[in-house]
Amino acid sequence: MRKDSPRIAVFGATGLVGREILAILESRRLPLAGLRVLASSRSQGTSLEFSGRSLPVEDVASADLRGIDLAFLATSSSMSLDLAPRLLEAGATVIDSSSAFRHEPDVPLVIPEINGELLDESPRLVSSPNCSTSIALMAVDYIRRAAGIRRMTVCTYQAVSGAGAAAVAELEQQARDFSAGRPIEPRHFPSPCLFNLFPHESPIDPDGENQEEAKIRAESRKIWSDPMLAVAATCVRVPTRRAHAEAINLTLERSLSVAEARSLVATAPGVRLFDLESGSRGPEPRDAEGRDEVLVGRVRADLSQPPGRGLWLFVVADQIRKGAALNAVQIAERLAGSDATPRGLVGRWSGPAMVKPSRS
Amino acid sequence: MRKDSPRIAVFGATGLVGREILAILESRRLPLAGLRVLASSRSQGTSLEFSGRSLPVEDVASADLRGIDLAFLATSSSMSLDLAPRLLEAGATVIDSSSAFRHEPDVPLVIPEINGELLDESPRLVSSPNCSTSIALMAVDYIRRAAGIRRMTVCTYQAVSGAGAAAVAELEQQARDFSAGRPIEPRHFPSPCLFNLFPHESPIDPDGENQEEAKIRAESRKIWSDPMLAVAATCVRVPTRRAHAEAINLTLERSLSVAEARSLVATAPGVRLFDLESGSRGPEPRDAEGRDEVLVGRVRADLSQPPGRGLWLFVVADQIRKGAALNAVQIAERLAGSDATPRGLVGRWSGPAMVKPSRS
Repeated sequence: MRKDSPRIAVFGATGLVGREILAILESRRLPLAGLRVLASSRSQGTSLEFSGRSLPVEDVASADLRGIDLAFLATSSSMSLDLAPRLLEAGATVIDSSSAFRHEPDVPLVIPEINGELLDESPRLVSSPNCSTSIALMAVDYIRRAAGIRRMTVCTYQAVSGAGAAAVAELEQQARDFSAGRPIEPRHFPSPCLFNLFPHESPIDPDGENQEEAKIRAESRKIWSDPMLAVAATCVRVPTRRAHAEAINLTLERSLSVAEARSLVATAPGVRLFDLESGSRGPEPRDAEGRDEVLVGRVRADLSQPPGRGLWLFVVADQIRKGAALNAVQIAERLAGSDATPRGLVGRWSGPAMVKPSRS
Repeated sequence: MRKDSPRIAVFGATGLVGREILAILESRRLPLAGLRVLASSRSQGTSLEFSGRSLPVEDVASADLRGIDLAFLATSSSMSLDLAPRLLEAGATVIDSSSAFRHEPDVPLVIPEINGELLDESPRLVSSPNCSTSIALMAVDYIRRAAGIRRMTVCTYQAVSGAGAAAVAELEQQARDFSAGRPIEPRHFPSPCLFNLFPHESPIDPDGENQEEAKIRAESRKIWSDPMLAVAATCVRVPTRRAHAEAINLTLERSLSVAEARSLVATAPGVRLFDLESGSRGPEPRDAEGRDEVLVGRVRADLSQPPGRGLWLFVVADQIRKGAALNAVQIAERLAGSDATPRGLVGRWSGPAMVKPSRS
């Protein structure tokens, strides 16, 4: 295995997240000894462009999993459950963007800016969090470090891209159908997207929470190592394309002024303060699409709480980038011992080893 | 003045709310001795249909304000500030849907299902609340009566119709522009609506709250006669047409089970429990458009609060109906002493007097 120039494979490479991982690998000019792209049989016969080369899409079902140093899984949970053990067995390090292993005690769930030190142990399998969780925690982490969080509620305004490329195509098609006077027929979602919104389409737990909301609680607790943290969310799908917005309400442990909170946001790696002072009324999805940073605006006192103890933030980020693909690539960089910049805007790929297999 | 069959005038009659007031007056078959429709000079030369008749639109600037028993103001705040005193002087009772008088101590701010008893004093000037406030309070009022509210936060998903008919036309035009490959150029709003969202466009207070958010606090306190109530909101404009959605988070004074909360919602007048039990994942804007009732779903425990003390609700309602026009007509019915049904679905127009001018 080439240690400083790994052989990489991207699974689910034809999906939104897979394609974005490839784009980020390309734009960061990571040295790599080989790159394979794999997807389900539906994508067979197609190819993907990378640095001017055309890569044939291999069939996951029949592919030889040997000779891979680093595997990105941009696949469904069920696919990840099947692939990850086989890839580990074949010697690969695996970065999984699905929910399959996020709550396995031995699998680190990592946002490199927040708990990247877990990667210094060179785990062979790493989970990347749910997009809504990543975006919220990126926005709030420095405030939490300074003042502690007693309670956090999140109301999401989630783009359809979280449900894949077909969902984005469906929203756009509905705009064309409306314009042509045709009826709007939902296929991918249970309801029309255009000019509508609906509670997140994930399965609903017996207590009435949908799984997206449950993920935000469980993943926040794991990433922040705070198993009793009070977190609750309402997750809503809205007719935007690929940047999620979130209204975050915090109850702080210790008093913090709005000015201090704003400074902390401005300092946090991977986050951009996008606020009134910048002449903006607050971030919008169109500001965040295709962008690496999490945009945080409207940092203000929550006047329903005692002074200094309550904060509102309004956060927007590209859910395919920091919410998924970028975070996975940042995990890879940190695993490689690369001195990735805190803001994650410049990729360097160096250091002693891409993968240090642990033989435990 | 005809007491049981008033002469009515609708100001701002060509706007979204004005037209809806006319439609509701027509569908409820209210007996009336006369109906005038007035609007700004831009609408001159046009006419409006009412019960098969064509009503010429009068110019507000030059209209004779005498001979009106009941005036609906579906006008801007500045227009209401000008018109209301002159109408009162001319002997009319005035129901104002703008924010002009909502915080005048002597002017009742009324949602008939909640504090309709204020109308038994036969006030000559009555304010109807902001749409976001009405919708939230309708959903929550019966829970408040049973268990008290220590704190309420609201995150809104507001339809563009709150900014008027031109805003709806702009959203629809943007869908057509997208479909035709034309650039999307915002005119009415500061940002594109289609496939985007943004913080509510109202002016921003020095503390970073926008005025829509401040209205929810101030109006909730006044309507519930609870001047210190802890309320905070984040208000967001989303690309839906005329039904607002709101994610409401409650901290209760006294313990209440989810089942009890659901029963209270199901009992509340003007509200429909629209929940998992009805086979729905929760209400959507398309369910509420053109409908009188406030749809409340996803009544569930907020797991970030102690058991029995925290609740989430997801609420959707037509912001032009209960959020504005319907509420104004209900105020008129109650002023007339009509025995309006609690659910407000059947209008009756009877009783001793439409208007009892107080000569204070």
